[in-house]
This record gives sequence, structure tokens and C-alpha cells, in this order.
Amino acid sequence: MANVLKGACIFGQSGGPTAVINASAYGVFRTALDRPEITRVLGAKNGITGVLHDRMYDMGEEDAQELNRLLYTPAAELGSCRYKLADPETDDSDYRRLLEIFRKYDVRYFFYNGGNDSMDTCAKISRYMQKAGYECRVMGVPKTIDNDLWGCDHCPGYGSAAKYITVSCMEVAKDTSVYDTGMVTVIEIMGRHAGWLAGAAGLATKFGSGPDLIYLPEVDFDMERFLADVDRVYAEKKKVFVAVSEGIRYADGTFVSARGPSLADGFGHVQLGGLATTLAHTVKAHNGAKVRGIELSLLQRAAAHLASQTDIDEAFLVGKTAVECAVAGETDKMVGLVRETNGGAYRCTTELVPLSNVANQERKVPRSWINEAGNQVTDAFIDYVLPLIQGEPKLPLECSLPRYARLKKVFAK
Amino acid sequence: MANVLKGACIFGQSGGPTAVINASAYGVFRTALDRPEITRVLGAKNGITGVLHDRMYDMGEEDAQELNRLLYTPAAELGSCRYKLADPETDDSDYRRLLEIFRKYDVRYFFYNGGNDSMDTCAKISRYMQKAGYECRVMGVPKTIDNDLWGCDHCPGYGSAAKYITVSCMEVAKDTSVYDTGMVTVIEIMGRHAGWLAGAAGLATKFGSGPDLIYLPEVDFDMERFLADVDRVYAEKKKVFVAVSEGIRYADGTFVSARGPSLADGFGHVQLGGLATTLAHTVKAHNGAKVRGIELSLLQRAAAHLASQTDIDEAFLVGKTAVECAVAGETDKMVGLVRETNGGAYRCTTELVPLSNVANQERKVPRSWINEAGNQVTDAFIDYVLPLIQGEPKLPLECSLPRYARLKKVFAK
Repeated sequence: MANVLKGACIFGQSGGPTAVINASAYGVFRTALDRPEITRVLGAKNGITGVLHDRMYDMGEEDAQELNRLLYTPAAELGSCRYKLADPETDDSDYRRLLEIFRKYDVRYFFYNGGNDSMDTCAKISRYMQKAGYECRVMGVPKTIDNDLWGCDHCPGYGSAAKYITVSCMEVAKDTSVYDTGMVTVIEIMGRHAGWLAGAAGLATKFGSGPDLIYLPEVDFDMERFLADVDRVYAEKKKVFVAVSEGIRYADGTFVSARGPSLADGFGHVQLGGLATTLAHTVKAHNGAKVRGIELSLLQRAAAHLASQTDIDEAFLVGKTAVECAVAGETDKMVGLVRETNGGAYRCTTELVPLSNVANQERKVPRSWINEAGNQVTDAFIDYVLPLIQGEPKLPLECSLPRYARLKKVFAK
Repeated sequence: MANVLKGACIFGQSGGPTAVINASAYGVFRTALDRPEITRVLGAKNGITGVLHDRMYDMGEEDAQELNRLLYTPAAELGSCRYKLADPETDDSDYRRLLEIFRKYDVRYFFYNGGNDSMDTCAKISRYMQKAGYECRVMGVPKTIDNDLWGCDHCPGYGSAAKYITVSCMEVAKDTSVYDTGMVTVIEIMGRHAGWLAGAAGLATKFGSGPDLIYLPEVDFDMERFLADVDRVYAEKKKVFVAVSEGIRYADGTFVSARGPSLADGFGHVQLGGLATTLAHTVKAHNGAKVRGIELSLLQRAAAHLASQTDIDEAFLVGKTAVECAVAGETDKMVGLVRETNGGAYRCTTELVPLSNVANQERKVPRSWINEAGNQVTDAFIDYVLPLIQGEPKLPLECSLPRYARLKKVFAK
């Protein structure tokens, strides 16, 4: 078996926040702090930029109970970044700096939590360290509400966002149906490249109170067909509830949001109002209906108060597994989630996926999980997403409000 | 004591939805169904318009358990309306129709759930029936997330909206602080005439993760001072989180939202983007900061999943009390909520307020509950609102999603 490798570890968070990203951090920290092979646990401030600037927290200084509360604390508690490392062939200055820092703290384990770009960062660092002859095990920990990461049945962060979207859509459907007058409501949901999040709104419909029409980026958007869809539902029930993915685009590839009206405000052209408002106003101009646009905005990725316990458990699991596998000798892998389908009941395990297979690939919603008309998801989508939103966490509260982790954040010397 | 009055009752819902409005409905229905004096319980479809059109549900046909689920079902389950009755002196046709319907069903109790306008409706109906010599007891049941109803320490619906706003602001504060770059976030909160809802965001700040600046309609808005406030916080911490009430206005009385940029889109002038977006772009134009506008939209009034148990209990209480007092002989009153301050612990009881005192008056946030600079609430506001958001209801769930009441809605014949 692999040799025992002793040394410090670094964990960093990258990309957009999720409701459960800190559960993965806790999975890494708790496991690493308990392993004798790992001599010191460092948390990079603002991802890889914190390593480059030698700004890292000593996680061994934290109180155990506060660390545990990371399970229920949304957004990246260590801070995140959107820094993309250069190709080491053209510019290796960042990599030389990383090697310097790794040597300074005797770092032998590097764990990085993020999406496609972060897995690319992991792969590049791993290759560089190997070339430099510096032994270091590098593991990717998946995270993205977008759920478009290759090599996973689903991604930690997605289930909680899906739950928030579903519950919010159920409430919006209730709210917008109280008056006896016609109304078209358009809700905009995140997902620039794939429709996983918008499709989750179909759960609300399945459970009796959700969007009549859902549009995903996987199907070309056609404004005429959209308006005809709205007219048809309006004629039938006077209320139309539409969910759209922010990433919907026309057949020529341009985003629908990009063609929205823009505003000359004296400071140059500024786009005001998102896709939901744009579509709502297009409907109003078309048929004169009363309209309302709603943007779920960043609330959908930060709503720890509606987190799925399944998602929390799995986010913890990928962090924990990354540490255990690295200690056991693995490197250059991402911890993927696998759905076991034996017997019907949902069960989820992990598998290791080579980083090079994951980086810069996107996973889309299968066309067959969207109905033929391209305006609603099918039962196959519902069956996929329903297990991921299950379970209510016992949230730590203080005066009936969320009690987030309060870390000391002592910088490592 | 008052004579025993036997007959049917009508209950109707009016105005905008809240997360707990149906808890008041349940308070009325459950109590009325159990009282021998009340021979039949009718629920008006879409408020007073349902009475006028003789579209009323026979609540005695409903399953008891489904009725109970009204406690956790958001928005007006019977449907609502925004219909304003004419002055009976100038046009009494609606009143004659109401009297006809009251006679048809032998209605002797009328309960109406709403805000200022609805109490006005109650008062008018009561006066007309008295003049017509038709014995009928009329009671108002308060409801409004805006919390501006006169004659109440606070209104059912407010506590749950305040809780949603607080938790959402805590999550937004977490989310917008993850990157190491400057950012100004502006969140728009409901409240056209009073700042009760926007002020609740101060709870998030008090609990460690909320808006740096809060602007209420009770203080004249000054754009220069606002930009100076933002600059000051930005210089200090690079992140600025601003909460604004939709109702903020300039010293001359015009709404800040009304002066926002509007868009000529070929269909005439259309206002795109709300107040948050407008202010965010004003900040961007002023200092070049990265900005984000968020509108909590109708989510804040429909979020039963974050309801306050205190609010649910009190919403039920006002409905129940309205029936009990009417049966005991009261009429022409609204059931107000009173805060008992003995001993420090929060306790809430009811008192009856003459309808004529309530109708068309507005209750504002005291100036002394807003700091001198007019950009944050004081501890007096926090002390006021904190008890109102307490308690987590045990929500009925189905597959981890809200299980709302499913009523049969059988029309009365």
C-alpha cells in the first residue's frame, strides 16, 4: 500500500457560495484534525489567493463546537475567490510561490472545494508539484448549486438550493392565486449553462402548487412559442406561473437576458431588471395581462435555513472522504457522488474520479427529462431530484434565529 | 347580558396575503363550528365580492384535519379581493345586495379579516345593517404584514414576515461577504407607508450578520446623505449592505422609487427594475463599486416555512376571540393585540377596539426607534420586534415539502 505521508494540509473554498459548502469544510477539518498523519490543518483565506498571500487560518485553534456549527452555516466561511491560475507552461510564478508556501508549512495534502474551474486548479497544482518532485496529495471536493459538475450523480449544494427553489415556488404559487383577476408571474432561477435548478421548480408543480411552465437552457428558447404557451394557460385558468433558467437562450446561442431592453441612463448603457422582468413585460406588451417578475437572486444559494439534511450529510461525506482517501495514498482525484439504485430506495456513496476527467466539462439535463414541448420537466427529473431535498436539519438557533459558526480565525504563523 | 343570537356566520379574507392569514381563518372556523349559536359557517370566496356574488363555501363540509392545516398554509386560502364598498349615502346597491344575501342565509355574524380598508368595509356594513334594522354582529380581524394598523401593538402577519426578512438578510450578509473584493448590496423590503418591515432587518444586524444601513419611510430620504453613508462604510470594510423600505421618500414627499430611471421600450414608458436596482446603480455611478440589487418581493409575505409560532398563535387568537366576543354580544369592534409588559417577559392578550377608531388610520415607527442619522434602528425597535418572531412551528410535511391544507371548497346552497 501507499507509504505513510506525514505533513500539514491546506483546505480552500472557491467559486460561488452554497448553503452547505461549509459542511464539506467541516468534513475535511474534523477528519484531518483527527488523523495522526496530518500534523496541522490550515484553512486558506479566500481560496488559492490565501495560499499565495500566506493568509491561512490555523484550524487547530478553533473550538470544536463552533467548528461543528459549520454544518449549518451558509456561504464560504473561509472566504472564496474566482482566481484562475495561469497555465504553468506560460507563467509559473504562482506555482513557484505555492511550492514555497507548501515547503514553509510542510504541506503534504491539498484539498480544494469548488466546481469545474477549481478542479482545473487542483489538476494544475498537482501536475506542477509532481514535476517539481515535491510529494503532495491533491484532492478535489465538489461543490456547486448549478449541479453541472462532471463525474457526479449530483453535486453537494444542489439539493439545498433545489429545496429552497421548490418551497419558494410553492409559496409564490399560493400567493399569486389569491385574487380573482388574471396574472402572469415569471420567476428567474439561477443556472447559466444547465437547467438543473430551474427544473427543480417542477417539484413544486408535482406537489400541487408550482409553475405551469418551466424553461431550461437545454432547449432553444422561442419567444413566439413562449407567448403562445402563456396565452394557452391564461385562457384556461387566468393565472400563469412561469419559471425560467437565467441561462435560456435562442437557437442562435444568444442569451434571452442579453437581448433584454437596456437603459441609457446618462452613465452609458446599463441593464436594469433581470430576465424575469424582461419576460414579464414582454408578456404584458403582448396580451396586456397583469404581470410580475421575481428574481430568486442569491437567496437560493445561501438559504441554509431550508437546507436538505441529505445534502448536508453528503457535503460532509465528500470532505471526509477526500481526507481519508488522501491519507490512504490517493491523489489527483475528485470525490464524486454515486447514486445506488438497487431496490428502489435512494442510497448515495462516493467514488474517486480523476481530476483530469472532471475539469472544464459540463453536465446538462438529459433532453428526455424535459417534456417534448420544452416547457416542463418529466417524472424522470422529479425522481432524480426528490431524494436530494429530503430531511430537515436541526438548525442551531439563538432567539429563534440561525446561530452560525463563530470562528476565531487565527492566522497560522 | 346580550341576547342569544342564533344564525349563520360569514368569514372573508381581504387585502394582501400573509404567511399566517389562514391561521386567523382557522381561529374563526374552528371556534364558530363548535358554537351552538352559530348554525352555519360560510367562507366567502374572494372576500366581500364572494358575498356579493353569492359564492361562499360551506365550511362545515371540510375535513377537520385539513382545516387544521390552515395554520401552516400561506396566502388567503379562500381567495382575497381589493374591492372598496361605495359610501352607502351615495350608492347603496352593494349594501342592498349584502342584506339580501344575509337574509337568504340568515347570517347574523360577519367576520372580516384585513387591514385598514377592510376595517372600513366592516364599519360601513355594520352601520348599514343597523339602519336597515337587520340584527347582525360585525367583527374585524386584523391582518397585515405592514404592521401599520391602528389599535394593535402589532398585527398578525408581521412577525412571520419580519422573521423571513431577518433570516434572509442574515443569509445575504453571509453570501455577499465571501469574496475579497468590494461590494455594495441593496435589498428592498416591503412597506409603502411605514418602516416596520425594513426595520426588522435590524434584527439581522443585531445578531451579527445584517444590513449596515437601513432606511425607513419615517425619515426623509436624502440621496447625498445616502451616498455619503455608503462611502463611509465602504471605506471602512469594503462591503456595504443596505436595506431600504419600498416606501422611502424625499423631503418633498415623492417616492424615491418613482424617480427611478424609466425605460422607453416602444410600448410607452415602462419602469423596469425596482428601487433596489435603482439605488444600486446610483451607487455604482457615484463611486464605481460593484453593486447588487435584491428585491425580497412577495416571498416575504408568503413564507409560511419561516413563520413565527408566536405569530401563528396570535393570528389564531384574534380569529377565535372575534367569534367568542360576537357570540357574547359584541359588535362593531376589531380584535386588537395588546402587549403586557409586566415583569419583562413578553405576553400578549387581546382587546376590542371600535372599528371607527381603526379605519383608515396608519401607525408609523416612532422616530425615537430610528437612530439620529436616520440609517439604522435602535434597541427599542429590536426589543419590540424580537418577541414577535419567536418559535418554530412543527410544519406538516410531505416528502420534506410543505403539506398545505387541501380544502373541498363546497359551495353553500
